[in-house]
Amino acid sequence: MLKVKKILLDDGPGLSAILNESNAKELEIYPKDRIKITNEKTKKSIICKVEITNNSKKDFCSLKKGEIGMPSDSFEKLQVKENDKVKVTPAKKPSSLTYIKNKFQGKALQEKEFKEIISDIVKGAYSDIETTYFVLACAAHPLSDKEVVGLTKAMVASGKELRFQTKKNPIILDKHCIGGVPGNRTTPLIIPIIAAAGLTIPKTSSRSITSPSGTADTMEVLCNVDLHIKDLYKIVKEHNACIIWGGALELSPADDIIINVEHPLELDFEGQMIASILSKKKSAGSTHILLDIPYGKGAKVEKKQHARRLQKRFETIGKKIGLTVKTMLSDGSQPVGKSIGPLYEAKEVLEILENKVEKKHDQRQKALEMAGIMLEMAGQTKKGKGKEKAEKILSSGAALQKLQEIIKAQGEKKIPKNGKYSYEVKAERKGTIKSINNKHISDLAFILGAPKDKAAGLILNKKVDEKTTADETLFTLYSNSKLKLDYAKIFLKNNTVYELSKQ
Amino acid sequence: MLKVKKILLDDGPGLSAILNESNAKELEIYPKDRIKITNEKTKKSIICKVEITNNSKKDFCSLKKGEIGMPSDSFEKLQVKENDKVKVTPAKKPSSLTYIKNKFQGKALQEKEFKEIISDIVKGAYSDIETTYFVLACAAHPLSDKEVVGLTKAMVASGKELRFQTKKNPIILDKHCIGGVPGNRTTPLIIPIIAAAGLTIPKTSSRSITSPSGTADTMEVLCNVDLHIKDLYKIVKEHNACIIWGGALELSPADDIIINVEHPLELDFEGQMIASILSKKKSAGSTHILLDIPYGKGAKVEKKQHARRLQKRFETIGKKIGLTVKTMLSDGSQPVGKSIGPLYEAKEVLEILENKVEKKHDQRQKALEMAGIMLEMAGQTKKGKGKEKAEKILSSGAALQKLQEIIKAQGEKKIPKNGKYSYEVKAERKGTIKSINNKHISDLAFILGAPKDKAAGLILNKKVDEKTTADETLFTLYSNSKLKLDYAKIFLKNNTVYELSKQ
Repeated sequence: MLKVKKILLDDGPGLSAILNESNAKELEIYPKDRIKITNEKTKKSIICKVEITNNSKKDFCSLKKGEIGMPSDSFEKLQVKENDKVKVTPAKKPSSLTYIKNKFQGKALQEKEFKEIISDIVKGAYSDIETTYFVLACAAHPLSDKEVVGLTKAMVASGKELRFQTKKNPIILDKHCIGGVPGNRTTPLIIPIIAAAGLTIPKTSSRSITSPSGTADTMEVLCNVDLHIKDLYKIVKEHNACIIWGGALELSPADDIIINVEHPLELDFEGQMIASILSKKKSAGSTHILLDIPYGKGAKVEKKQHARRLQKRFETIGKKIGLTVKTMLSDGSQPVGKSIGPLYEAKEVLEILENKVEKKHDQRQKALEMAGIMLEMAGQTKKGKGKEKAEKILSSGAALQKLQEIIKAQGEKKIPKNGKYSYEVKAERKGTIKSINNKHISDLAFILGAPKDKAAGLILNKKVDEKTTADETLFTLYSNSKLKLDYAKIFLKNNTVYELSKQ
Repeated sequence: MLKVKKILLDDGPGLSAILNESNAKELEIYPKDRIKITNEKTKKSIICKVEITNNSKKDFCSLKKGEIGMPSDSFEKLQVKENDKVKVTPAKKPSSLTYIKNKFQGKALQEKEFKEIISDIVKGAYSDIETTYFVLACAAHPLSDKEVVGLTKAMVASGKELRFQTKKNPIILDKHCIGGVPGNRTTPLIIPIIAAAGLTIPKTSSRSITSPSGTADTMEVLCNVDLHIKDLYKIVKEHNACIIWGGALELSPADDIIINVEHPLELDFEGQMIASILSKKKSAGSTHILLDIPYGKGAKVEKKQHARRLQKRFETIGKKIGLTVKTMLSDGSQPVGKSIGPLYEAKEVLEILENKVEKKHDQRQKALEMAGIMLEMAGQTKKGKGKEKAEKILSSGAALQKLQEIIKAQGEKKIPKNGKYSYEVKAERKGTIKSINNKHISDLAFILGAPKDKAAGLILNKKVDEKTTADETLFTLYSNSKLKLDYAKIFLKNNTVYELSKQ
């Protein structure tokens, strides 16, 4: 039995604890070994990695014999307070690793094997090395539809599940975009339209992973997005909708741990992507989902054939886990709208809702089309009439009013100023814009500081097929860091962002 | 510029440093990010992972603003002392990760790509996740001979190289066994025979990875094996030989990092195994190597066909990196000798050298055969006459005298007592021993506490094809822990170690 002491090492998902050397020796525990820590009163236990400190020499960490240092996350999980006693035992290697070995050799995984693996991952029983093994085994032998169903169910089972559906209100809508296209911020347009139509759409979004801004990053410019689950239910009950960050809700928590491995490797495997998206939606309590698959040169999905295969897999697998999934293909060959980066995307969303942009504005049109399909899915209009109804809701100002309600309910924020430093990129000659490179636009926004710096980003003055004269502004860069703006200028020297047609 | 403070977290190969939160914020560094720490005086730098501590709240770690905590390893690498100033900058993601991505997709790696990857791994620029990616990419698409040559050269280049070869003394001998067979302790027999014949054989051995004892663990019962490089050269000059632990010599350091990933995953891939072994031998300054490949049921290599392929690959690849490699196949279907575990293996080695065992003793015969081949490789005898000469050296007591010289030179140790607790496993009926399960013998020795507890292990009283009466002792278990002995008894209830022929 050891006395717990709080340490403030922020250690991410693979939690560590620190033991004094003499206790570690007694228990025959070595650095990086896994231990099980149990609160015998509450019967709660966690598994974590061990670091060992030697108190006999001069050390800035002083942990006495009989004490164990743990980060605050572990205090919550174990339901202990400082100086409580916990039991520490060496933890065995998880037996689910055998399934991964089989998978790496080409054997398909069963649902119950996925459940054991995912449950061990969420418990913290896997090291980074072992989680990577799982991810890469599934990448080396891509998951079949049956396996993706198994993985999705395992991921849902590993976390909390929200519930909004009632007998009276059986349809809970949601939307998702597989990503990869900068500026594609349709959520803050669609959600208020759907909610204004009287339908329920509790939206949990992610922060940026591979894009310069996630929906949660953009919404955070306007209001608080990090809400407690109780407030979430209250807001949805009152306003039919919310737009919050889903990260703290413990929905499909395995997903975050897996993404933590995929992200540094710049991996994005189809089977895992489908399981990741559908498990989040299912856990968030949705029943009807519209999925946007942008494709085209420079998008995540380049070929139409690939987009079509994804469509089919999402719909088939969705059905098998009890979700109605509709998919749509959209143009992913250039940014959507004209703003990239949290602040500028948020401002453009407001302009659209305030009816300050042209009717044919691409982002507006896309949001209306999607909202239209969703109104049809929910049976609110006949087939083919959805977009018309969505347009009415938007034009009337009802959507703007609904978004303002949501913003107030979540906790309104003061919109910050544009980036302190800016730089206009001009056309070198007259011509027509042939293409805009999505990847380079995203890279630029990242270099400028997005999404951490809300006011870092770009505003595009020209889009594909528009004409430019020599010296006309193509796009403007913004950042609050002069250094970052300078880095962006260097990037521009070595990379083509806008391509002009031959004269 | 931050002031360095020593911390005593033992952190293994992926070194960490700890920053105060306010410094981390200034530098825009997040937990688990990689930083580059530079000593601007010595121009030395390291790359490591960052943990962040928040000093504003009560914390048992107190690191002030302007200080950076580092483990003592990093102090050595940077050549700094406490309170020296170092420069800290965020480290970029290593560009060699692109090659791994290609390899995972099936593209062969070039030598210069291996060099970049291995150099980044040794620098500490890879996280565990990224090292695992490398290991699994090479496992998903097994390495060709050309790739293994590239990897081997890259691994040699990444570390130190010992040099014993001179114009007068062009042949530096070495031996290696690919492992997997318990009790197979031929090194402490072969080395003194070869050295007594006047040949140079500086032996660097490993501690146990997957067996209950490595050669270094066994030798450590008799003498110190953790020697400084200067003493190593001195001892080899005086005595023609040494038998030391190679782990601290920085030979092929990437190997240790890669093994750290393979080991928890229980992986052992052919290409990486060949590169691992040959890079260590090349770095240790050997020119002529005899490689023992035990095969048979329960060995690492089960099929003769597989053993033959390995033979060919070792010889071909050895030649391409400038080594003369000879391989031999041996019986790996049951333990070699009668002792398993550091203490008992060491005692059996002494008995053989003291001519206290029968001439046909399997371990003695195997060592003589191997020493004979090596004497022939070095041109000391005609082909077919090596074993005879080896036998003479052993019988005369010259080999024992040489081992005693080596033990004294390395620092003799007092041989410990047998394990405090023991248990005799008896035959349930009379019969003939049909087989002994290598894996279960190793598992038992592990459970009993080997190799950490030098006196944990087994002594076999019967080997395959020997007869037993009912109630005769088959083998005896030893441990210094009663608990571990009890665990071993439970293991025996559920696992067959000895199989008797049908009556």
